[in-house]
Amino acid sequence: MMHRVESFDLAHPGGTTRLLYGESAIAEGARELAARLGGRALFVVSAPAIRELHEAAVAPLVAVAGSAVWLDVADGEAAKSVGEAERLWTALVAAGCRRDDCVVGFGGGSVTDVAGFVAGTILRGVDWVAVPTTLLAQVDAAIGGKTAIDLPAAKNAVGVFHHPLAVLAEPGVLATLDAAQRRHGLVESIKTAAMLDLALFERIERRLDRVLAGDAETTAAVVVAAARAKARLVERDPREAGARQLLNFGHTLGHALEAEVGYGRLAHGDAVAHGVRFALALSRAAGCDEAFAARVEAVLDRLAVPPLPPLAPAALLAGLERDKKARAAGLGWVLLAAPGEGRYGVRLAPEAVAAALSSFFRRTGGGPL
Amino acid sequence: MMHRVESFDLAHPGGTTRLLYGESAIAEGARELAARLGGRALFVVSAPAIRELHEAAVAPLVAVAGSAVWLDVADGEAAKSVGEAERLWTALVAAGCRRDDCVVGFGGGSVTDVAGFVAGTILRGVDWVAVPTTLLAQVDAAIGGKTAIDLPAAKNAVGVFHHPLAVLAEPGVLATLDAAQRRHGLVESIKTAAMLDLALFERIERRLDRVLAGDAETTAAVVVAAARAKARLVERDPREAGARQLLNFGHTLGHALEAEVGYGRLAHGDAVAHGVRFALALSRAAGCDEAFAARVEAVLDRLAVPPLPPLAPAALLAGLERDKKARAAGLGWVLLAAPGEGRYGVRLAPEAVAAALSSFFRRTGGGPL
Repeated sequence: MMHRVESFDLAHPGGTTRLLYGESAIAEGARELAARLGGRALFVVSAPAIRELHEAAVAPLVAVAGSAVWLDVADGEAAKSVGEAERLWTALVAAGCRRDDCVVGFGGGSVTDVAGFVAGTILRGVDWVAVPTTLLAQVDAAIGGKTAIDLPAAKNAVGVFHHPLAVLAEPGVLATLDAAQRRHGLVESIKTAAMLDLALFERIERRLDRVLAGDAETTAAVVVAAARAKARLVERDPREAGARQLLNFGHTLGHALEAEVGYGRLAHGDAVAHGVRFALALSRAAGCDEAFAARVEAVLDRLAVPPLPPLAPAALLAGLERDKKARAAGLGWVLLAAPGEGRYGVRLAPEAVAAALSSFFRRTGGGPL
Repeated sequence: MMHRVESFDLAHPGGTTRLLYGESAIAEGARELAARLGGRALFVVSAPAIRELHEAAVAPLVAVAGSAVWLDVADGEAAKSVGEAERLWTALVAAGCRRDDCVVGFGGGSVTDVAGFVAGTILRGVDWVAVPTTLLAQVDAAIGGKTAIDLPAAKNAVGVFHHPLAVLAEPGVLATLDAAQRRHGLVESIKTAAMLDLALFERIERRLDRVLAGDAETTAAVVVAAARAKARLVERDPREAGARQLLNFGHTLGHALEAEVGYGRLAHGDAVAHGVRFALALSRAAGCDEAFAARVEAVLDRLAVPPLPPLAPAALLAGLERDKKARAAGLGWVLLAAPGEGRYGVRLAPEAVAAALSSFFRRTGGGPL
């Protein structure tokens, strides 16, 4: 039986983020933050659909602050545009935001990304609290202080590291997720577990069907374990100079797939699932633990991720090349090594990647054009 | 005789900024940064007028990097719009900017403000170097890591603290300044000296006419002393939680004047000059050293700052009220206390401020409508 609230801290260069996971996490967080928020204005950045479903969930935070201004953003990735950020900045100034006021990012990963970015840049930075409402945001996006908006040419191109005061994650808000949203969060959980936490991976193997079916208690246990694993890694490497790159497992091809298929047409979680499969193929070629690679693949199979549309490998290779150019040290692949262990910064010959990509498309049926 | 280059460091929470002032500061800085910049792309953010006059000045930096991409921004305050920032972000991504590339802000305070902001937010932050080309930017704007862009409703409303790797300030680029630009830089120098450095204030008293006349050596000595004084204060209080507020002497009314007269119609330096006079009136009422207040006023007199247009005190009081709302601790005035010493966070009754403002306008002739 899961505790009512599990709490832990993430120490980072600018202070500490308090993480609370459980059925009364928001009320408990509000109690802990009462001295900080009392009498201050709270600016709740959210999407209309989230507000409609779950507005009551943030009531404890609003109660300790005394008042709240709701600032709507677009749903999904569209929340992360320069235009939406400008609209939020302008609304914050118009509403009289001060340096010691507090922004709340209440929604999925796109909402917490843009809310954190706007909080990190208005008046040169005000505090913020993340209240993630999707599985993906609770296990991944809301943790670690990476905030961002997109440019048309590049996802997450503009952002700051700006850790929230607290991450308050309740299982109750997950009840309204659809099957696809559960799957997307599970993909990131599997990624984290495969790289960092064998016990969590084995738990996911045993309990995957229950999480997919929406069992709240099983889901909550997976979520908190994945969040803890990510938080521990971020503490070790806050600026992603080294080991934090392990969390990019599956994201190298994943980002290229998202860009090629089109943001909004291929969900991030599904793109990462395909990216993890490809990274597993590369990992096998590099001599990883074969039995564990097969187990990771078997768990992904159970998610029933929709197949990719026909894609041209040349376009994906060009996308990988652009990604490589954007990195200081060139494109380092993240590969599986052993159960619960990964390697990052692995250099692979472009010809080897191209050959693996052709073979990957033949095998998955997503097939080249 | 001034040394060829004076160098000093500013330690801040994220590292150290190297400051080099003197006639070969850029070449010397390029030598010191060679290991960091070698083989990396350099993105030089500048205004066309600056590039036309002084492009050769940054050649030593370009030479160690191997190549440079020039990114133009609008002249003056217009450089600091969301649209200009978006244009710069997009251009950086299109030019293949990587995490270990480096932005150079080459121009006056508006250029270094927007260049630092864009550097602090592209790819969640890349390094930058400030090469200030105005007296105001060399003594004030380029130092201390405050970066910003404006919203139509509020100057500097959006920004980050992002210290440059280095500030490289050469007297040569000041030769093309006009009398008004010299005056604006002197206002900030006088402000810093009155609050922090009596010896510098006395030097300005003795040498003001030479600086106004454009004497390079005298100017350079004032610039480096004012820069050192500011750097020492920023080290003590990097986030402006306390003593750094002393540098806002004259800026409280100054900002209200800029907003009321209109950005671009009243220069920041001139607005601050009027603001310092008003702060001196408040300081006298609060019992400051009268003889020193008279000396500060006498130095300002010699600058021949253009008078203000007719303004409605009620509008200025409303502007001060907005400013007060934006501050966590309410509106704290910065007042002169004694020679080279100030007080910050001074609370004054609104009626006292209103009365002082009416009297101020009668005295200065800027007069109420």
